[in-house]
Amino acid sequence: VNISVIGAGAYGTALALVLGENNNDVTLWGHNPAHLSEIAEHRENRRHVPGVPLPESLKLEPDLDAAVGRADALVVALPSRAFRTVTARLGRFTGPIVTTTKGIEDVTGLTMSGIIREAAPGAPVAALSGPSLAAEVARGAPTAVVAASTDEALAREVQRWFNRPCFRVYTSPDILGVELGGALKNVIAIAAGVCEGLGFGENSKAALVTRGQAELRRLGVHLGAKPETFYGLSGLGDLTVTCFSRHSRNRTFGEQIGRGANPTELLAAATTVVEGHPTARSAHQLAERAGVPCPIIAEVHAMLYLGKPARRAVSDLLNREVKPED
Amino acid sequence: VNISVIGAGAYGTALALVLGENNNDVTLWGHNPAHLSEIAEHRENRRHVPGVPLPESLKLEPDLDAAVGRADALVVALPSRAFRTVTARLGRFTGPIVTTTKGIEDVTGLTMSGIIREAAPGAPVAALSGPSLAAEVARGAPTAVVAASTDEALAREVQRWFNRPCFRVYTSPDILGVELGGALKNVIAIAAGVCEGLGFGENSKAALVTRGQAELRRLGVHLGAKPETFYGLSGLGDLTVTCFSRHSRNRTFGEQIGRGANPTELLAAATTVVEGHPTARSAHQLAERAGVPCPIIAEVHAMLYLGKPARRAVSDLLNREVKPED
Repeated sequence: VNISVIGAGAYGTALALVLGENNNDVTLWGHNPAHLSEIAEHRENRRHVPGVPLPESLKLEPDLDAAVGRADALVVALPSRAFRTVTARLGRFTGPIVTTTKGIEDVTGLTMSGIIREAAPGAPVAALSGPSLAAEVARGAPTAVVAASTDEALAREVQRWFNRPCFRVYTSPDILGVELGGALKNVIAIAAGVCEGLGFGENSKAALVTRGQAELRRLGVHLGAKPETFYGLSGLGDLTVTCFSRHSRNRTFGEQIGRGANPTELLAAATTVVEGHPTARSAHQLAERAGVPCPIIAEVHAMLYLGKPARRAVSDLLNREVKPED
Repeated sequence: VNISVIGAGAYGTALALVLGENNNDVTLWGHNPAHLSEIAEHRENRRHVPGVPLPESLKLEPDLDAAVGRADALVVALPSRAFRTVTARLGRFTGPIVTTTKGIEDVTGLTMSGIIREAAPGAPVAALSGPSLAAEVARGAPTAVVAASTDEALAREVQRWFNRPCFRVYTSPDILGVELGGALKNVIAIAAGVCEGLGFGENSKAALVTRGQAELRRLGVHLGAKPETFYGLSGLGDLTVTCFSRHSRNRTFGEQIGRGANPTELLAAATTVVEGHPTARSAHQLAERAGVPCPIIAEVHAMLYLGKPARRAVSDLLNREVKPED
């Protein structure tokens, strides 16, 4: 299959590798022509996936229209903040579009597949998500993810494009639950990082992950997702790896805040995207509109956007009334 | 309340501290009088919880009958292999007995509360479980656990004995689910450690934890537990901390096996208890009798008791047929 990957960051590059190994004809587009030239010259994405050679068969294409024009299907791996702008140029594409971006749009509350549906109304949409640190995917470490679409035949098609011995793809009809789990977990990961930064240890983090999982599920189910999705790879699986991995940007961002750093200054200095930061705001909006109590999301929002001190936010979480587990 | 803690290991000592801080009158019993004398002399359990001073008010009692005789309630924190022998001496005790031990008895398939019910038929039984590494509990790091009993008034009573700002106690009526989650998670943690020892990375571990969670729940529900218990602190919470913590003995044991160590030799050299080892056998028995497919438990059992090489066990797990998530 002719597949163009839209986004030449770490995750887009790792997925382009997997698709190529599966004998698809793969094109990688990135917004920065100089970066694509670097990749072409070294046959390696040194900025984002250093040390992993890219095959000669991988095409690098700086022209978005050309990348889209030659494709039977698109895989979108953009930061969420660029998602609306770039997908606005996919309006006439009618092949399948697979989003791998984890975010919720500010104000509209849309997941990425919702943005695609608005931008490219003729394109069937799927989402790929799960615990899949890009560096590990690129080096072939065993990984399992979920391909989700309300169109179950499309979910199986996406499964066929990607499925490899070391990149197992399960299917799900619940694209909303898969996307919400992937996006919201970044907010919980910031809170987990804050706990660590405050020196609170692993018991606290495990409790937070447990209560966070319940919170994501409560909000997601209210928004129309299926509860069981939040127990799967795209929910629990992605949540645990993001909260416990040394490599998670969201967790690390939270850890720095827990140690006393100022969120605004951290973001100004950041060279990579911390998806949990915008998601904390859009998720808090969703929860407030829906009237669903989401104390962890609310406290992360208060730390990041209202200047609430980390120690007070966490102690407010810990001091909630003791009651039977829900 | 007069409470005797039966077992002077790391967890028993940490719980004795929490109970003492809550103004209970606490006695600590251990099977080794020399060890108790050491603790009394230094006012510190240097073997198991070094660096944490114990209050003068904590009584150390080498005589089990004396420790039991003065107590209104008992908290049992023994290794599972000693549980039957020691609790056999509690037959006439009729106050509440709280088990904190995580195991399933070989052949009988009983959890620890089941053993207590046989040994002390007059005693109301509860279980305390959740993500609570002893070293962190002892130093007062924020921790949240569950007190479970089919007698909900007893669960609330146990909650009152233990609940502290940094040791939050939730209640649950599902003692079976709480105990099964705590015991079975040690088997999954061994598998998670094996993945690491084989160099497989965090994506693999997250996938394993996710599939493991589903497996525990499937087996537990078949045995009469409630599904939601496995999503709580004693299920998911304890599973994540055990699979991801540097300090988990079960995970570390698995990691060494993944690196090629022989399980029998490891155990012969071990100075601490690896509860997942006996539990792998009893859990596999339970699953086989119940006819519930538990592939992770089966592969851990095969590695530990049938000499199956770690790499082959894990690749058999990874190569299971790709299908919709369940």
